[in-house]
Amino acid sequence: MPLIAQPINCSLKADAKAPSSTDVMIGLLGEAFSKVDVRLAPTVRIAGCNVLPGVSSDEGKGDDWPGIRAKILAADILIFGTPIWMGQPSSVAKRVLERMDAFLDETDEAGRMPSYSKVAICAVVGNEDGAHNTCAQVFQALNDVGWTIPAVGGCYWVGEAMGDVDFKDLDATPRKVTKTAKMVAANAAHLARLLKAEPFPG
Amino acid sequence: MPLIAQPINCSLKADAKAPSSTDVMIGLLGEAFSKVDVRLAPTVRIAGCNVLPGVSSDEGKGDDWPGIRAKILAADILIFGTPIWMGQPSSVAKRVLERMDAFLDETDEAGRMPSYSKVAICAVVGNEDGAHNTCAQVFQALNDVGWTIPAVGGCYWVGEAMGDVDFKDLDATPRKVTKTAKMVAANAAHLARLLKAEPFPG
Amino acid sequence: MPLIAQPINCSLKADAKAPSSTDVMIGLLGEAFSKVDVRLAPTVRIAGCNVLPGVSSDEGKGDDWPGIRAKILAADILIFGTPIWMGQPSSVAKRVLERMDAFLDETDEAGRMPSYSKVAICAVVGNEDGAHNTCAQVFQALNDVGWTIPAVGGCYWVGEAMGDVDFKDLDATPRKVTKTAKMVAANAAHLARLLKAEPFPG
Amino acid sequence: MPLIAQPINCSLKADAKAPSSTDVMIGLLGEAFSKVDVRLAPTVRIAGCNVLPGVSSDEGKGDDWPGIRAKILAADILIFGTPIWMGQPSSVAKRVLERMDAFLDETDEAGRMPSYSKVAICAVVGNEDGAHNTCAQVFQALNDVGWTIPAVGGCYWVGEAMGDVDFKDLDATPRKVTKTAKMVAANAAHLARLLKAEPFPG
Repeated sequence: MPLIAQPINCSLKADAKAPSSTDVMIGLLGEAFSKVDVRLAPTVRIAGCNVLPGVSSDEGKGDDWPGIRAKILAADILIFGTPIWMGQPSSVAKRVLERMDAFLDETDEAGRMPSYSKVAICAVVGNEDGAHNTCAQVFQALNDVGWTIPAVGGCYWVGEAMGDVDFKDLDATPRKVTKTAKMVAANAAHLARLLKAEPFPG
Repeated sequence: MPLIAQPINCSLKADAKAPSSTDVMIGLLGEAFSKVDVRLAPTVRIAGCNVLPGVSSDEGKGDDWPGIRAKILAADILIFGTPIWMGQPSSVAKRVLERMDAFLDETDEAGRMPSYSKVAICAVVGNEDGAHNTCAQVFQALNDVGWTIPAVGGCYWVGEAMGDVDFKDLDATPRKVTKTAKMVAANAAHLARLLKAEPFPG
Repeated sequence: MPLIAQPINCSLKADAKAPSSTDVMIGLLGEAFSKVDVRLAPTVRIAGCNVLPGVSSDEGKGDDWPGIRAKILAADILIFGTPIWMGQPSSVAKRVLERMDAFLDETDEAGRMPSYSKVAICAVVGNEDGAHNTCAQVFQALNDVGWTIPAVGGCYWVGEAMGDVDFKDLDATPRKVTKTAKMVAANAAHLARLLKAEPFPG
Repeated sequence: MPLIAQPINCSLKADAKAPSSTDVMIGLLGEAFSKVDVRLAPTVRIAGCNVLPGVSSDEGKGDDWPGIRAKILAADILIFGTPIWMGQPSSVAKRVLERMDAFLDETDEAGRMPSYSKVAICAVVGNEDGAHNTCAQVFQALNDVGWTIPAVGGCYWVGEAMGDVDFKDLDATPRKVTKTAKMVAANAAHLARLLKAEPFPG
C-alpha cells in the first residue's frame, strides 16, 4: 500500500501559481518519494489560505486551519516546506506550528497526540544562510507536538553569504541536493511505513 | 528632551482590550522608562492590525504596516513585546521582523538603514521556557536590519517547566523581574540618548 | 531481547561523583526505560574524560572520544544529557556534537552513517529557561549526523525565570516531568526496537 | 585617543600558526577598524589556551581564563570570532561564553557588570550555512552578560549549501563581505567611543 505525504508550502506569497523555490524543493522531494512508493498529495500553499492566529484547532468563522489540519493528519508524512527570511523560518511557518500546539490537549486514552506515529521532514530554501536554524526551530516545535523526525530529516539549499539567487532560478539542481532529497525521502518513507504498521503504544 | 519608546505587542490575540501578559510586561517597562525620562507611545497590538505577509515596506491595499512602520521609526526606542509559543517568538512577531527586512534596501547615502541609531529591547512572556531563544531570534533579526541592542536588552518572565500560569495572573511581580525592567529601561534610555545626539556616521 | 541505552552527561563538572541535576534526570529516564525493557549502560561523564576538540573520530594521543564513540554506537538509544547555561546547551555538549560531525564521512556502501537506525533523546536541566532551545540545537545537530528523534524526544526541567534552584534539590519530582519521562522512554524504546529489526535501507 | 579591540578566535585548532578562516575574517575587520582609529590587540587563539570548563572567573590551577578575561575587559570592543560547526558556534566559543556567566555576579555598586559600556561584534565563517544562528546564539549570550551590540554587529561568510570551500581559500574576498566589515567596524567604533565617554549609569 502506498503511503501519502502531505506537503505544505509556507512561502509568504499567497498565489500558488506564482513560482516558488519552496515548491521546487518540494517537487524534488516528490520525485524521490515516488521512487519509494510514496504519493504526494497536492501542496497546500498556506499563505493562500486563511489560517487564523491562535493555538486551538478551530479559531472559528473563516478559519481554514481545520481543513488543512485534516489533510495533514490524513497523510503519513508531513513535508514542511518553508523559505528562510532573516535566517529563520517564515511567519507563515510559525503560524502553522502554533496551530499544532493544540495537539498537546488532543491526546487519546493512551496519551498520544494526533501526530503520533507520523513522520515529518523539512524542505528549506533561501538566498543565503539559515537552513540549519530553520530546521532546528521547526524540528523542535514539531517534535514537541508529537512528530517523529527520521535520520537526516532536512533537505535544503541556500546560496553563498549575502547572495540573492533563488533556488528556482538555478541552471541545474546541485548534485548534493538531489542526493540529499533521495536520502531524506527514503528515510522518511521507511520510518513512516514502520510506524504505520506498528504505531507508538503511548 | 524626553525620548519616545514605541511598544508593539505581538500577542496572537487581536483585541487590544483583552488582557495580555505581554501588555503587563510592557507596562512594567513603561513605569521604569518614565523614571528615566522616556515616554511610551500607545502600544500597537499587531494582531489587531492587518499586517500583510511580505518583505517590502508596503504590500499594497489594506496593508497596515506602513502606518506602524512610521510610528516605529518616529520613536527612539522599540519595545518589541512578544509571547512565547513552543519556545519561540510568535508568528506575529516574525511577521513584523519580516516587514523590517525591507530596511536593507532603504539605506541613505551613507549606507544607513532607517533603524540606525535607534535602540531595540525585548519584552517576553510565556507560561514556561523559551525566553532566551525568543530574545536570540528577535535580537539577531533586529540587529541584521540595523537596530542596536543595549546591554541586558531583554526583560522576560516564564514559569516553571510545563507550567500554565500567565504573567498577568501572578499575585505579585517577582522582584527580579522588576529589577531587570529598571536596568533594561535605564540602559536603553542612556544608549538611545547617546545615539540620538551622535548618530552612527555610516 | 532488551535494548541498550547509553546516557552521556555533558555537565561542566568533571567529577562523576559530584551530584548532578543532569544525572538525576537521566536516572528518572532510566526508571522509565527499565519498564519498557531497556537497560541503561553506565553514564559517561564527558567532562571527566579527555574529549579533544576537533571533527574527526580520533584526534590522536590522549583522545578519549574513540572509546566513548564506541560505547554510543554499541547502544540502540542515546540519552543526550546536558545542563543549560545561558539558555543554551553546554560547551561540553557542543564538543560531543562536533565529534559526531565525522559520521558524515563514515557512511557505508548504502550511504548510511554509523548512527543510522539509532534513536536519540534529550535530558535537559537548568535553573531557568532554555530547554526548548537546547533541544532545538541538539536535535538539529544530531539529526544532521544521522540520529532519529522519536515523538516527544525531550525530557526537561527548568525553574521559574531567573531562578536558582537545581533539579537535584527539588523536594519532589514534578508529576509532569515524571509523566514526560515515561512517554519519552516508551517512544524511544518502541522506535529503537522497530529500527533495530528493520534498519534504514539507505 | 584610539580605542582597542580584542579579537578572540574560537577555532577548534589550537595552533595559532595554523591558517584559520576565522583569523582571515578578523584580519579583514582589523583593516576596517584601523581606518576608524581602532587598534587590534593580538588575537587570542582560545583552543591554544587552557580555558577550564566552569562558570566562575577563575577555575583554579592551570586555568588560562583569568588572563584572557583581563585582556577582554581591558579593551573597548570584543571581536568574537568563531567558526561554524553543524550550523552552530563552536564548542570553544561556548566555553568562552560560559566563563562570562560569572559577570552576572560581579556587578559594581550601580549594578553594572564588568562588560557594561563595552561593545561586542561577531566574526563568523563556515563552509556553508549557520551564520545567522551563530550570531543569534552568541549575541543573546553576550547581551545577557552585559555586552552592547551595535547596529549590524555580525560580519560573516559561508559558502553555498553543503559546500566545502574555506573562506581562507577564496581567490578574492567577496565585495559584500568587505563592505559589511567596514560597516561593522565603523558602527562598533562609533558606539564604543560614545559609551567610553559616557558609560551606562547603571
